[in-house]
Amino acid sequence: MQLGRLNHVGVATPSIAASVAFWRETMGAVTVHAAFALPEQGVTVCFVDTPNTQIELLQPLGDASPIAKFLEKNPQGGQHHLAFEVPDIAAARAAFETAGKRILGPTRIGAHGTPVFFLHPKDMGGVLTEIMEWPPRD
Amino acid sequence: MQLGRLNHVGVATPSIAASVAFWRETMGAVTVHAAFALPEQGVTVCFVDTPNTQIELLQPLGDASPIAKFLEKNPQGGQHHLAFEVPDIAAARAAFETAGKRILGPTRIGAHGTPVFFLHPKDMGGVLTEIMEWPPRD
Repeated sequence: MQLGRLNHVGVATPSIAASVAFWRETMGAVTVHAAFALPEQGVTVCFVDTPNTQIELLQPLGDASPIAKFLEKNPQGGQHHLAFEVPDIAAARAAFETAGKRILGPTRIGAHGTPVFFLHPKDMGGVLTEIMEWPPRD
Repeated sequence: MQLGRLNHVGVATPSIAASVAFWRETMGAVTVHAAFALPEQGVTVCFVDTPNTQIELLQPLGDASPIAKFLEKNPQGGQHHLAFEVPDIAAARAAFETAGKRILGPTRIGAHGTPVFFLHPKDMGGVLTEIMEWPPRD
């Protein structure tokens, strides 16, 4: 497996509305996509484009949101995960399993509509890591 | 100011050697640059290329390293900062000052040899943010 593009940096926030204002007004973001809910993952998501990657704003959705726990420790929000692209999600999953890395749950459909899985930060140098298939298949 | 490229993601580590092995063997990184010391910033630095950005591995150097405190809280390491490119560091600094954002220390020469400054995470949605001038000037 060859290291792919950094598709996005996931950034947790208590308020996507406030974060969008920050990214537009303070950081100068030009393209901010419409926010949308991912109920099965317990998050509302909003992508902010940089010229070479994206920031994925993540706001808790529902009581069991994995982001809620992160915000308890970091009330202002902060860096949550890094997402890297792979051409074949099944091959990547097998490779990380072979390497003895803990995979968090099943492969599922992520915010960009392609299959993704997450790896345990304790097996990944302290970085919660998302692996996502890209580009989308027909 | 318009949001620039994400130049790199800073990732703290207790061992650049161990992290380089991880990024090469587990993540499939092809290009890992030589590590080097930045004594005035209290870090040893090593850049790992992804196709669209870089991971900046940061290991404490000396007793007063700002990374040492981070590693006390996160012994394995983890995401430390995000670095965005601007065309004019002085203009960017003035804009963040006008916006009321706390700037951490003077503008100085960063790991890529260009002027950089850091912004307080509490003013930046919980994200320690580096602003760096890019490209290098002649």
